[in-house]
Amino acid sequence: MKHRMKKAPMGWNSYDYYDTAVNEEQVKANADFMAAHMKEAGWEYIVVDIEWYAKDAGTMRDKYQYIPFGDEEIDAYGRLLPAVNRFPSAADGKGFGPLAAYVHNLGLKFGIHIMRGIPRIAAHQHMPVFGSSVTANDIADPSSICGWNPDMYGVRRNVEGAQAYYDSIISLYAEWGVDFIKCDDICNTNVYPHNPYSAAHEVEMLQRAIQKSGRDIVLSLSPGPALIEKAWHYEKYANMWRITDDFWDNWDLLRNMFDRCELWQNHVAEGAYPDCDMLPLGKLGKGFGKPEWDTNFTKDEQITMMTLWCIFGSPLMIGAELTKLDEWTLDLLTRKDILKLVSNDYAGRQFDKNEDCAVWSCLNQTTGEKYIAFFNFKETAQEIQCDLKEVEQFADTEGNVSCAKELWSRKEIAVQGNVLTDTVPSHGARLFELH
Amino acid sequence: MKHRMKKAPMGWNSYDYYDTAVNEEQVKANADFMAAHMKEAGWEYIVVDIEWYAKDAGTMRDKYQYIPFGDEEIDAYGRLLPAVNRFPSAADGKGFGPLAAYVHNLGLKFGIHIMRGIPRIAAHQHMPVFGSSVTANDIADPSSICGWNPDMYGVRRNVEGAQAYYDSIISLYAEWGVDFIKCDDICNTNVYPHNPYSAAHEVEMLQRAIQKSGRDIVLSLSPGPALIEKAWHYEKYANMWRITDDFWDNWDLLRNMFDRCELWQNHVAEGAYPDCDMLPLGKLGKGFGKPEWDTNFTKDEQITMMTLWCIFGSPLMIGAELTKLDEWTLDLLTRKDILKLVSNDYAGRQFDKNEDCAVWSCLNQTTGEKYIAFFNFKETAQEIQCDLKEVEQFADTEGNVSCAKELWSRKEIAVQGNVLTDTVPSHGARLFELH
Amino acid sequence: MKHRMKKAPMGWNSYDYYDTAVNEEQVKANADFMAAHMKEAGWEYIVVDIEWYAKDAGTMRDKYQYIPFGDEEIDAYGRLLPAVNRFPSAADGKGFGPLAAYVHNLGLKFGIHIMRGIPRIAAHQHMPVFGSSVTANDIADPSSICGWNPDMYGVRRNVEGAQAYYDSIISLYAEWGVDFIKCDDICNTNVYPHNPYSAAHEVEMLQRAIQKSGRDIVLSLSPGPALIEKAWHYEKYANMWRITDDFWDNWDLLRNMFDRCELWQNHVAEGAYPDCDMLPLGKLGKGFGKPEWDTNFTKDEQITMMTLWCIFGSPLMIGAELTKLDEWTLDLLTRKDILKLVSNDYAGRQFDKNEDCAVWSCLNQTTGEKYIAFFNFKETAQEIQCDLKEVEQFADTEGNVSCAKELWSRKEIAVQGNVLTDTVPSHGARLFELH
Amino acid sequence: MKHRMKKAPMGWNSYDYYDTAVNEEQVKANADFMAAHMKEAGWEYIVVDIEWYAKDAGTMRDKYQYIPFGDEEIDAYGRLLPAVNRFPSAADGKGFGPLAAYVHNLGLKFGIHIMRGIPRIAAHQHMPVFGSSVTANDIADPSSICGWNPDMYGVRRNVEGAQAYYDSIISLYAEWGVDFIKCDDICNTNVYPHNPYSAAHEVEMLQRAIQKSGRDIVLSLSPGPALIEKAWHYEKYANMWRITDDFWDNWDLLRNMFDRCELWQNHVAEGAYPDCDMLPLGKLGKGFGKPEWDTNFTKDEQITMMTLWCIFGSPLMIGAELTKLDEWTLDLLTRKDILKLVSNDYAGRQFDKNEDCAVWSCLNQTTGEKYIAFFNFKETAQEIQCDLKEVEQFADTEGNVSCAKELWSRKEIAVQGNVLTDTVPSHGARLFELH
Repeated sequence: MKHRMKKAPMGWNSYDYYDTAVNEEQVKANADFMAAHMKEAGWEYIVVDIEWYAKDAGTMRDKYQYIPFGDEEIDAYGRLLPAVNRFPSAADGKGFGPLAAYVHNLGLKFGIHIMRGIPRIAAHQHMPVFGSSVTANDIADPSSICGWNPDMYGVRRNVEGAQAYYDSIISLYAEWGVDFIKCDDICNTNVYPHNPYSAAHEVEMLQRAIQKSGRDIVLSLSPGPALIEKAWHYEKYANMWRITDDFWDNWDLLRNMFDRCELWQNHVAEGAYPDCDMLPLGKLGKGFGKPEWDTNFTKDEQITMMTLWCIFGSPLMIGAELTKLDEWTLDLLTRKDILKLVSNDYAGRQFDKNEDCAVWSCLNQTTGEKYIAFFNFKETAQEIQCDLKEVEQFADTEGNVSCAKELWSRKEIAVQGNVLTDTVPSHGARLFELH
Repeated sequence: MKHRMKKAPMGWNSYDYYDTAVNEEQVKANADFMAAHMKEAGWEYIVVDIEWYAKDAGTMRDKYQYIPFGDEEIDAYGRLLPAVNRFPSAADGKGFGPLAAYVHNLGLKFGIHIMRGIPRIAAHQHMPVFGSSVTANDIADPSSICGWNPDMYGVRRNVEGAQAYYDSIISLYAEWGVDFIKCDDICNTNVYPHNPYSAAHEVEMLQRAIQKSGRDIVLSLSPGPALIEKAWHYEKYANMWRITDDFWDNWDLLRNMFDRCELWQNHVAEGAYPDCDMLPLGKLGKGFGKPEWDTNFTKDEQITMMTLWCIFGSPLMIGAELTKLDEWTLDLLTRKDILKLVSNDYAGRQFDKNEDCAVWSCLNQTTGEKYIAFFNFKETAQEIQCDLKEVEQFADTEGNVSCAKELWSRKEIAVQGNVLTDTVPSHGARLFELH
Repeated sequence: MKHRMKKAPMGWNSYDYYDTAVNEEQVKANADFMAAHMKEAGWEYIVVDIEWYAKDAGTMRDKYQYIPFGDEEIDAYGRLLPAVNRFPSAADGKGFGPLAAYVHNLGLKFGIHIMRGIPRIAAHQHMPVFGSSVTANDIADPSSICGWNPDMYGVRRNVEGAQAYYDSIISLYAEWGVDFIKCDDICNTNVYPHNPYSAAHEVEMLQRAIQKSGRDIVLSLSPGPALIEKAWHYEKYANMWRITDDFWDNWDLLRNMFDRCELWQNHVAEGAYPDCDMLPLGKLGKGFGKPEWDTNFTKDEQITMMTLWCIFGSPLMIGAELTKLDEWTLDLLTRKDILKLVSNDYAGRQFDKNEDCAVWSCLNQTTGEKYIAFFNFKETAQEIQCDLKEVEQFADTEGNVSCAKELWSRKEIAVQGNVLTDTVPSHGARLFELH
Repeated sequence: MKHRMKKAPMGWNSYDYYDTAVNEEQVKANADFMAAHMKEAGWEYIVVDIEWYAKDAGTMRDKYQYIPFGDEEIDAYGRLLPAVNRFPSAADGKGFGPLAAYVHNLGLKFGIHIMRGIPRIAAHQHMPVFGSSVTANDIADPSSICGWNPDMYGVRRNVEGAQAYYDSIISLYAEWGVDFIKCDDICNTNVYPHNPYSAAHEVEMLQRAIQKSGRDIVLSLSPGPALIEKAWHYEKYANMWRITDDFWDNWDLLRNMFDRCELWQNHVAEGAYPDCDMLPLGKLGKGFGKPEWDTNFTKDEQITMMTLWCIFGSPLMIGAELTKLDEWTLDLLTRKDILKLVSNDYAGRQFDKNEDCAVWSCLNQTTGEKYIAFFNFKETAQEIQCDLKEVEQFADTEGNVSCAKELWSRKEIAVQGNVLTDTVPSHGARLFELH
């Protein structure tokens, strides 16, 4: 049985700030900050993103994001290890064990990013596969590559040793104490447009390996866009999957997320969370070969983002360097009365969407709590209205709504004749709890 | 609020036997038969399929299925009426009222097929739209046609009089007593491959007109394949929608339906039923310009079809001429212990599928009833096995299974160590109730 | 044998200025102007563009470019005639005969635009097809429409009366004295993306009808983009075909034309001219529901356009209202030393193209005349260079080039060591005759 | 200037019989046979096909056609060399020099197959690129692979050392005496469906390297289907290019070739030959992991194939093991009166094609020689007719045709009233020389 989390994972991911080049000290600093200031609001995962095994990661950023044919930390069985020059505690084959323990001691959980498949160099060097009698060249498929990262070959389907390879890496990660695996180039293997879910068998092998490991590890699939026609497969074998390509601090991408959430609104379930990608707020981008910058989102746009991610039920992964968060952003990220919506008990549904605005409703079927969110797509403020009698989700529930509390502003609004009305600023949002 | 049927509709449709040319007497004969021999098993809808308004339907079958620029029964408002030469009781503007009353008197429900849009001739003749100040040419879109039927133009989006037109036809049908509308060229407007759900706005207008009419009318959308990325829209506005193109008595099409059911398995809900299309068994095809024939499906294939449709939760619409049903087929169609699975209380899920076979599970979450179905895709018999401990649906339920009753054969099988095993004939199926 | 013109047609077309609404007086005024000021430079065709049969053309320009289900001048055989309210000389069934005669008397040639197919209204009214025993509904295909104009249905392939219909309209046009037919919705039937040359059989019927008529009529196919994989078919049955969608006075479209000319450079031949579309210069757009405007092209861009069209060998059709041409533009359009390149004796080839510039060469294989054109795509002036020894076209010709005459500026440039160098303004062009 | 052969290349290729595993002795035996029995008829090229550098080629034929991560003969600069265990004369770094000399001594020409790009192993091992200061990892693009062969990475565009690499291999081949290079995975890089000519820059680098080498080397591009929209590029940089995917001895593929020849008929020119692929006749397939077989083509189908390839103007490359040719096949392949059509002086054009048959015409514009070919697609014999007055190619030539000589049968036929008529057997062809 796959891990069935009752709410969408909430955490921090190193990518948006550090690109490929985060190190141990930086990870610890972010974990310390989360434990001290955010854990109480529900944040718990600390995730080390892509290429922690690359010794020279980030050193040729003007030419390559991922240095081709670069120098990687790898064991005799073709398993990638943390680069010791970047993660000193990994020395002597300890891998991420010490770092995971550090994070666990803070009361948090530890996650890592991996690329689908087996290192190319392992295949070219015919390295043995742990726990099997085959070598890497027997299971590596030289025609299955990632279009944007040069590290791995896909693993073949139905060949001896393939499951053994995935078992060998997952059992290693489980020993280290890994709680969360973000596997990349797997949700949409976009270099193969005629077969963009070409690695479905690798998703299955990963999930089987996780269950064999006996550890409750969240399996997160990247990159998007996930294929809606494979929704049933993601739901069966994974815990979260990216519904868009990389998301950044750009209004067009945020506006587009409403189309993606419309598409995936029926697919949030216990242990199964369509993923809107990381939250690019606060300080960003130091590792990307240019100076760090402050998020390009306005405050209203950040409120829109948080409201949509929460009412839709997306996982929440912060992209910012946490230690540099300003007070306003920290407050935005620690509103427990709003973050509780990402629990599986709350079902969000799009009520209406047109060129100018969107309205979502949300119902907790156990407690009967009701919410409405307004979103303004326009370049100017506008009044948005919702006749609550028309909301399908509230059809079976009784009684009139007389009052609505706007959560971000903490203000009460009177509701006349079951019609909720408010003025919403440009690109902004309102989130109402109804009484 | 759209109609929320608790189970998928079950009925008879004139198309597979009569093509475009069914008449009143034939419809009545099928209704009589259903009332006498099938109603008790849950069958209730009698549906008159395509071109009941065409006076010459079927007379040029060697050249055309649908005679272009043919002679149609139409009122002064561009609303199509039953051709009186084929449906005598429709004389004097009574439409399908008398025939619907006849069907209702038998304790059954009455349905009709319509083509999306407004008659082309109404637009070319500038006929007035009932309940509005516009004429048909104002709302007809000459660039929106059906690729395979020449009767209609699509109705424009957001123009005055468009909703009035749909209101005008639906209120007429409601007056007649229509309980079920199968709208064609709308679920997939396949002549426009870059925009195959180009008539989404017409689905919305139809559902609004139905709700205005005050009558509980089932809205069924054709043809398929429905677009999985529009699942949320079908579920919001329609009651059933075709998940394949036309289905006929051919093993390849039946085999393919397993792929379609895999895709849509998570989308069956109260009032929302993905539709596997009509059941082509018994006598078929008299109207198709060739002699009638007996279904090309073997008995095992018919059992496979019935088992899949039921465990998946598809609507059941019989294509056969009912009065010519043989005893074996009538029995196949009236097994109440099996037909109860099409109720919304029973959730079917694919447990496994490979090149040789498929296994489905089914759970009634209220009663705890459990079912397993085996399907053999091979050209020879094979043994199929299922370890019941591995079935996700049964994970939360308690206790061991010691015994399984195969419903079609009514035989009990002992279950050893929670593993269910049986030999299944080529292209055949087994359906087990577990204890 | 189809018409084999030795050079690409040059003329005027009413569309860019008058849209659907040109009238007889306006056509005559443009013809008079051409005869007086441009004929001597080689201009000869006067073409009446789309919907000359529509009585109300242009009267609902805020809602429709082409009024659906509008009022058309049509004869008893379903053949469209000039609207007499717009073309008074067409009264008494004389059609375009008097207007063609007027144009011929000026020493010019007369052309018309037609839509592929047969009027929809003729099919719905079952009108007889001239010279056959069938009626329009027998040959009209209700599933074959134009995506953007509502007037016609396509004519079926291989049915009795289909060729008779095309013969009937072409013989009428030939009687009138038509020299040029621009048939629309035929080169790319873009509403059918999976079969965009779905009317290939209508092209063949048109060409056969033209040959039967005994008149040398140029057959021009619209709209583009033509399909390069059908090049052989266009070349066999037509005289010119549009290689882009509609071209207007916009730099991006002009820049894009270099890609199209690259693609089609090998396909210019006697009687076969890939068509870059009309020249949108001078005064434009009066009929388009907004005030007329001066071309948005700079003078350098207009020189670029003329140079490319000429060296490539495209037909030249002026979109401007001729009577309002200023002196600079009139000079641009009457440079006989440049216009001679559109003759089939001159073969143009792309020598190089990159992001910043393009270079073309041109050779007259009979006289040995050599040309080089430079084009600057950049937003700033740049120096462009061409080593003439590298030009494939000049490989078989002898001797050094010592001197180049830039034709637009009429200046001589010295050529050092066979390398031609010049500074070209932003978006501008240079055209050199080599000695 | 690229090599401008006056006729399409004719030769032998090892693939259809030997797959990846031909050796020196076998190549010599075929060369000896060609010199003795076929050279006089115009045959001249001896081509060693794919993976001559793979030491173990063919040893795992049950699992792989191309062994992934296998053992290759390679020099210190990442240049592949003939496997000495298969080509003993290549010992001591002599490469194909001795074998090329052997072939040249027979009065024939020598060709080799290469895969586009640089060996993957060279990139992973950072081998130096000859004649440059870079290493293989600098120029190899890890995201550019072949979908079906695991040996190479594509070479990057516009990076230092890329042209040097291609220069380094071509100069080596030129030193060896190579006359013909068949480069694979380049004409259609089919693993990238959105960009199937993704290696256009490598074609350009290859042609530049060939011209630098100073040797007249034919450049042949595989596999097909070539992209008609890139015709101008193939024509500019290559000498021949495959217009289909792999062709084998199967009627459906032969029938399909008529569609491909229709498409490419206008593209045969001096030094530029669209390529219908090898002739799979005689004994075939010994290397393919099953017993050798006799061509599945009937004699009539072989005549059809030879007639089409010749009148179209395709290169002719024999797939058979030459030493096992029977007399009938040898005669088919050595008909000089027919083979002369592959010269560039003869222009073939499709005159007509329908579901049942095709007719082609051919004209030598210098000598005025005229030919007609009939092809019967039906399963039974049929009479085919051609009115010679309708043939466009013959329109400018004078005089009546009174007599036609069918070349394969060497029989004269009287021509009545310029109409040529003959009965053609099923899947067969007739080729007439007209007088």
